[in-house]
Amino acid sequence: MTMRTVVVFSGGLDSTTLLFHLQATGHELAALTVDYGQRHRRELDRARMICLDTDVALTTLDLTGLSPIFGGNSLSNSSIDVPEGEYRTESMQLTTVPNRNMILLSIAVGWAISNDFQAVAFGAHSGEYTPYPDCRPNFAKAMDAAAQLCDWKPIRILAPFIDWTKSDIVRRGAELGVPFESTWSCYVGGTIHCGRCGTCLDRRSAFQKSGIADPTRYAVD
Amino acid sequence: MTMRTVVVFSGGLDSTTLLFHLQATGHELAALTVDYGQRHRRELDRARMICLDTDVALTTLDLTGLSPIFGGNSLSNSSIDVPEGEYRTESMQLTTVPNRNMILLSIAVGWAISNDFQAVAFGAHSGEYTPYPDCRPNFAKAMDAAAQLCDWKPIRILAPFIDWTKSDIVRRGAELGVPFESTWSCYVGGTIHCGRCGTCLDRRSAFQKSGIADPTRYAVD
Repeated sequence: MTMRTVVVFSGGLDSTTLLFHLQATGHELAALTVDYGQRHRRELDRARMICLDTDVALTTLDLTGLSPIFGGNSLSNSSIDVPEGEYRTESMQLTTVPNRNMILLSIAVGWAISNDFQAVAFGAHSGEYTPYPDCRPNFAKAMDAAAQLCDWKPIRILAPFIDWTKSDIVRRGAELGVPFESTWSCYVGGTIHCGRCGTCLDRRSAFQKSGIADPTRYAVD
Repeated sequence: MTMRTVVVFSGGLDSTTLLFHLQATGHELAALTVDYGQRHRRELDRARMICLDTDVALTTLDLTGLSPIFGGNSLSNSSIDVPEGEYRTESMQLTTVPNRNMILLSIAVGWAISNDFQAVAFGAHSGEYTPYPDCRPNFAKAMDAAAQLCDWKPIRILAPFIDWTKSDIVRRGAELGVPFESTWSCYVGGTIHCGRCGTCLDRRSAFQKSGIADPTRYAVD
């Protein structure tokens, strides 16, 4: 039986590969993206474009009312500079939206219940190093347990990349023909990827480690 | 050590008694209430009044952007009539906001992390009969497990009334001097409680079973 699955979708490399991965494994898909007052609209634009190309219906929810929670970080507050350099604890805290994954998953589960979907998938990965607490395998497992109890019909939480590294995701994306050049990672949101923020460095390094050619245009080499 | 606890607060009988109960047991409190496009503002008005009287800081978050999830029920859509009579499966579905407790808890946990609180409390109760799946003890336990993993510092989910009936809550509220007449339950939202919708019947019956005098003015006897 085909599983009806809603993907928590950002238009980034991980969730785009997840979309292709689930499509290839027979899921019937919808995508859900969230406007939480991102400092730039590039993510949302890419999300729309990729969903059009893959023929997946996209719903965008307006969560800008959560700014009292989401406002203290550089992703949604343009008065806080995006830190440059690799992910480290100090700089991570500036780019962390507190409890983002639980909030996104709970909303996606609500959407799944309303629209008769059976599962919610998200693109969290950890590999040998987890920069975010809510990308850990145990967190995904705990959310799966809660989602099976929140309604009379159980909803499943799928996190097929949870034990993968980002370069595993790049390799899988290459197999599936993911249009990497259409995905957006950079936190700064210029016309091309900055090449200097934590997520640009992370993206670049994942391509290098995977041995897959990186089609991304970066502002600095 | 005093626990800093945020209460998911509606201005209703259960969460108001919870506020008093936690205050009496030494918690340092904040209250969080949500505007999800309720068909009437009476709940939000009562929530503000009770927090002023008890000297608890109240934050109201605007979740009206979630109407694509929350819109298909009579609590947030004024074109759908509130069903009269006791809670039964058919009428329950019309008054159910899908995955409401997981969404509210996840947002409250995000707020707790941002504001250096250690716990989130909600007033769910089940007693011998649970009309809502997300008021079951196992659901609260699963959310507690997830909240302990979502950030580097664990957040606890407290549900001290989870095994209680609503009349147990009324009895505890009476001990604590809760101003029941200030709390609001009715789904219809007239100037006084309608006395006919599921939650009015529930409120009335809880007072009757508890043996505590019901100070509520109902439109019908």
